[in-house]
Amino acid sequence: MIYFDNAATTKPDGDCLKKAEIYLTDKFYNPSALYAEGYNLHLDLRSARENILSHIADKSKYDLIVTSCGSEADNQAVFCAGRRGNIVTTYGEHSAIFNAVNEAKIRGVEVRFAKLNADGSVNTDSLLSLIDDKTSLCSVIHVNNETGAVNDINFIAARVKAINPRTVFHSDGVQAFGKIPFKMSQNIDLYSLSAHKIGGLKGTGALIKRKTLQLKPLIYGGGQEGGLRSGTENVFGIKMLEYASGKVFDKINENFAKINAVKQKLCGLLDKDLFTILSSEDSSPYILTVAAEGVRGETALHAVNDKGLIIGTGSACSSNEAKRHSRVIEACGVDKKLYDSVLRISFCGNNTSEEAIKAAEILNETLGELKEALK
Amino acid sequence: MIYFDNAATTKPDGDCLKKAEIYLTDKFYNPSALYAEGYNLHLDLRSARENILSHIADKSKYDLIVTSCGSEADNQAVFCAGRRGNIVTTYGEHSAIFNAVNEAKIRGVEVRFAKLNADGSVNTDSLLSLIDDKTSLCSVIHVNNETGAVNDINFIAARVKAINPRTVFHSDGVQAFGKIPFKMSQNIDLYSLSAHKIGGLKGTGALIKRKTLQLKPLIYGGGQEGGLRSGTENVFGIKMLEYASGKVFDKINENFAKINAVKQKLCGLLDKDLFTILSSEDSSPYILTVAAEGVRGETALHAVNDKGLIIGTGSACSSNEAKRHSRVIEACGVDKKLYDSVLRISFCGNNTSEEAIKAAEILNETLGELKEALK
Repeated sequence: MIYFDNAATTKPDGDCLKKAEIYLTDKFYNPSALYAEGYNLHLDLRSARENILSHIADKSKYDLIVTSCGSEADNQAVFCAGRRGNIVTTYGEHSAIFNAVNEAKIRGVEVRFAKLNADGSVNTDSLLSLIDDKTSLCSVIHVNNETGAVNDINFIAARVKAINPRTVFHSDGVQAFGKIPFKMSQNIDLYSLSAHKIGGLKGTGALIKRKTLQLKPLIYGGGQEGGLRSGTENVFGIKMLEYASGKVFDKINENFAKINAVKQKLCGLLDKDLFTILSSEDSSPYILTVAAEGVRGETALHAVNDKGLIIGTGSACSSNEAKRHSRVIEACGVDKKLYDSVLRISFCGNNTSEEAIKAAEILNETLGELKEALK
Repeated sequence: MIYFDNAATTKPDGDCLKKAEIYLTDKFYNPSALYAEGYNLHLDLRSARENILSHIADKSKYDLIVTSCGSEADNQAVFCAGRRGNIVTTYGEHSAIFNAVNEAKIRGVEVRFAKLNADGSVNTDSLLSLIDDKTSLCSVIHVNNETGAVNDINFIAARVKAINPRTVFHSDGVQAFGKIPFKMSQNIDLYSLSAHKIGGLKGTGALIKRKTLQLKPLIYGGGQEGGLRSGTENVFGIKMLEYASGKVFDKINENFAKINAVKQKLCGLLDKDLFTILSSEDSSPYILTVAAEGVRGETALHAVNDKGLIIGTGSACSSNEAKRHSRVIEACGVDKKLYDSVLRISFCGNNTSEEAIKAAEILNETLGELKEALK
């Protein structure tokens, strides 16, 4: 089985699991406990947060708040930094931002959406035209989870701050962290990430926060995470995030080039009579979005699954939503007749060109058959 | 080492870990994915939720929303069910309720606190006198996490509903679930629980919800958990909760009697010149709270730790709070001179009378020495 749905989730890294296992057995204590066994875990977590953070941010200027997932981190950004005036965001956000800002609207905050370019990146002019002196929060996704489009968030954040320096700038980095070589500039106040997209575990995410930014918690209680996220710390999950991020960042440039070659190989082999490539050339190497006109994405997904290839259709996280096609694909201005036939093929650092060749064979063969049958 | 701080966290159950391990390896998929491997996990989670729920609630009348911890479940109850009028709660709540309702107060909801009895249980007359036709939420902890006092929440909920049938009744069941034999009556609308207090994992909790109760999410996004809690499902954590709760509920009555004997054994052996017993006779078997006048709890904790016994001081979750003594102990009307010297000794189903005997020896010897040294 070839697994090309890594943007939905990745297989937990086996080496990291072995290393972290002790936190499920001998080191099971509560890190808030005062005795040595608890306090040692408290220290362990402090260094874990610093190690994760240091891959993309200056640890003298930023803190890392561990959350239970990227969605929680996104929600904390929206509900705790976007309480007043207006929130400016984009039509290309993950539903954790999109649905949270729509709830913020119900609570009385104005929400403004910037237009997308054809590849799913934000139209910067559109975004900047929406920022004013009442903009409390601006949130722009780093890598679009449906098309792989990369937004230059350091550049965008600088432009936003030039208009309103008090606007809090947040980015959802879930599909970027550990994949796109990147260092946060000081114009970025908040940044969300997720462990299970890079070989860590479901149930762990983080919100990186500029130290001088005042933020309220989303979850109140015992005061863990510097008072910004209560609940007993998920030690095993946090250590897995530390180990997994260490591993992906060690090879981030190498893998970027390698996976880009895998993607280009697959892209080059796809039959252009069957597939329209939706991802742009400068999109994330880890995501290739295509459409096979005339065949429903779900039908194609099941058919290639039967032949040993796992791929996705748009965002897995949105699969429960009532809407049959993706609002993001629609906002990109994709031809209506392709809405229903979008396929997302997504990679991790372990994928190979051999897998890409085999996957292209399966895709070409299967979609050829399906289209023939539909004639 | 004798571990008697099980109310802070428990060691993950080894058998359950073995059984659940496959969800970290072969079955790592995203349960929202449409292909067979993902959909099978979706089914796996559906049965897990039902199995967990069925231990204490009628699954035709209740749903289970998986959360990342008990604190998140408590926060969802407060912020999503207590948005209007007033919230009635008690001075004996865990900080996940106490600090959440204080935030609700800042947001404009009136908050009313019922008095406690000397053992830490709620004074029911005080509570009922606070309920009126504007009470949107009433939250009463099932087992007090600091004293072990058990509130008869089915009785209290019935009395609350008799005054205002529209009041949503919530209980934090974190220290009760899997320990106190109990079935939810239909007067209880919401009930929080946590996995890591019963041999499951940190990072998993749940909010049980009466099916007909309308509730908003605390975390918005992809629409997981029936739209009530977004974020990719933590499959490994949920299966661990399923297995661990299966195991503790299988022996809930047997362990209740066994651990009560362990507690009585320890209680009986403690030198009454050194220790004042704060837990009442009918408190949870799993929690024994004592005070050793004249010796700071933290000092005692470190001293017994050096001799091979791990115990707690009040609530581990509150250890980061600025206040040196517990607000709950204060609300019980405990003599002021004991505030600083409270020790919480807490058990799990695996503890034995032999451990209780050894622990009593260590406690008597150590506290005797400490008090002698302080003379």
